[in-house]
Amino acid sequence: MALTLEKIRAARERIVPYIVKTPLLRLPALDEYFGCRVFAKAECMQITGAFKLRGAFNKVLQLSPDELARGVAAASSGNHGRGLAYAAKALGIPATIVIPDTAPQLKVDNILALGARVVRCGLAERFEVAERVVKETGAVMVPPYNDEDIMAGQGTIGLEVLEQEPAVEKIVVPVSGGGLIGGIATAVKALRPEVQVCGAEPAAAPRYSVSLREGKPTKVTVEKSPADALVANMPGSVCFPYVERNVDGMAAVSDEAILRAHKKLLFEGKLLAEFSSAIGLAGVMEGKIPVRPDENVCFVISGGSISPEQLDRLKTIEE
Amino acid sequence: MALTLEKIRAARERIVPYIVKTPLLRLPALDEYFGCRVFAKAECMQITGAFKLRGAFNKVLQLSPDELARGVAAASSGNHGRGLAYAAKALGIPATIVIPDTAPQLKVDNILALGARVVRCGLAERFEVAERVVKETGAVMVPPYNDEDIMAGQGTIGLEVLEQEPAVEKIVVPVSGGGLIGGIATAVKALRPEVQVCGAEPAAAPRYSVSLREGKPTKVTVEKSPADALVANMPGSVCFPYVERNVDGMAAVSDEAILRAHKKLLFEGKLLAEFSSAIGLAGVMEGKIPVRPDENVCFVISGGSISPEQLDRLKTIEE
Repeated sequence: MALTLEKIRAARERIVPYIVKTPLLRLPALDEYFGCRVFAKAECMQITGAFKLRGAFNKVLQLSPDELARGVAAASSGNHGRGLAYAAKALGIPATIVIPDTAPQLKVDNILALGARVVRCGLAERFEVAERVVKETGAVMVPPYNDEDIMAGQGTIGLEVLEQEPAVEKIVVPVSGGGLIGGIATAVKALRPEVQVCGAEPAAAPRYSVSLREGKPTKVTVEKSPADALVANMPGSVCFPYVERNVDGMAAVSDEAILRAHKKLLFEGKLLAEFSSAIGLAGVMEGKIPVRPDENVCFVISGGSISPEQLDRLKTIEE
Repeated sequence: MALTLEKIRAARERIVPYIVKTPLLRLPALDEYFGCRVFAKAECMQITGAFKLRGAFNKVLQLSPDELARGVAAASSGNHGRGLAYAAKALGIPATIVIPDTAPQLKVDNILALGARVVRCGLAERFEVAERVVKETGAVMVPPYNDEDIMAGQGTIGLEVLEQEPAVEKIVVPVSGGGLIGGIATAVKALRPEVQVCGAEPAAAPRYSVSLREGKPTKVTVEKSPADALVANMPGSVCFPYVERNVDGMAAVSDEAILRAHKKLLFEGKLLAEFSSAIGLAGVMEGKIPVRPDENVCFVISGGSISPEQLDRLKTIEE
């Protein structure tokens, strides 16, 4: 059941009728500031506003008729829950999303609007509650990243980037559990091993920087950060080997850099991302991901879930 | 010296080394809300953040060696001044931009950063001061819209839209003096007369709605509006005949609709525009520009000059 280029290609065949081939944008207004030729793979323009839809569809489209009848479940307050709820609606099957009480009402409303059943609970008990839902309803639990079918779905982004910009030399990917970068790196290294794939994770939650050094998935403390979509406390055990084998670098990026890069991406690049998705640009800005002025660097802008109130944080960020 | 398709094609040949071919984005997240298949021609991603660069380059690249040596001048606090300053810098010639005291410091700084000489003065006397600059320095005055070379430059957007999305059925364009829509409509009607071109202007400054009804350029009162880049008090005399001949509709759009459409474009479409540039979507939202659910409608997002503070206005806008 290993993740292979063939599985990623099969995922693409499977999900292509349901997703958007998001634009790969050339953003010359950012070149001077970030010191390279900037491209953005705008997954913030994906349906439901994030790449998570790709993995969710690849998983759900492989369920048996029996499983489909019982439906799907996940514990998530964010992009994964919304993506899964959308996929379930598109296929006409039931979905239950367990959402912690700490999640903003907007996110709950977005998931409810897709017709999913929502179960609220305390933050600490959300996985336990999701397990109970699975036991009671027979629903299939769809994991957010630690699964080869999920990774294969996210890896379709790698196929698209290579086709949309064959001159790409480096791809920079936001990192949490490792499903996105694991999928992309596996696709890219199979097709074009000379193209570099680099990860960027919050210094506030450096699970991959630590784990790659230790040579095994290692738990870290997760501090609060504006990168609130990148909160895994350790690499996914399924994801880790693919990341270890295929990734050329991993930067642990400061909160301040994330906000500064986000402001540049929005006001100069004109693209609205969630804070987490500016982390690759931030890693380059901090010099933690080396680039050359003539290098074609593609930043995966993984999602765009952000509120007007959150944008207030940019006012105190200096140019 | 009439504006023709040939002149617009020649403009394109002339300016193509200097400008960005901006992306034409498919934004499916907006379809349901606006009731059509939404495309955006993202001139907010143009160098200097607005389409104005196209006309400025087309003008400056046709100056004689003598004129180039004397340089260029304009009275503008906004996108035209910035575009002209950039074009002058790219060609290594002097530029003087007259900016009223009322303009925000950020805009002044952007123009100074391009190496232009800036002359400040009272708002009412800016054209007089610009004329004096021309007399003193021999500089060539570059008008913001009322000029066929400027219009030909802006019309290159029409050529690009037809190439980038041959299935386009309607193009919606923000309107002030009429240089942008006049150029685009002339190109589009010459090549694909069945493609509709519609204008959208602020109800707070309905110079084209009134003038088209009167059959001649007519002065109107300009009220304050969030669409602060669309402030001409009457159609350009050069522009008006091209608009009258080639345009299929003209909507006068409310301020509230502009802000609501802008918020949708930003938070659902993930694209940062200036308020003025959301006016086409707003016109559709208000039902003043008719569309069908299966219709391919391209909205020209003319610019993206906006500050974090301006975005505060979106907080009070209901969904």
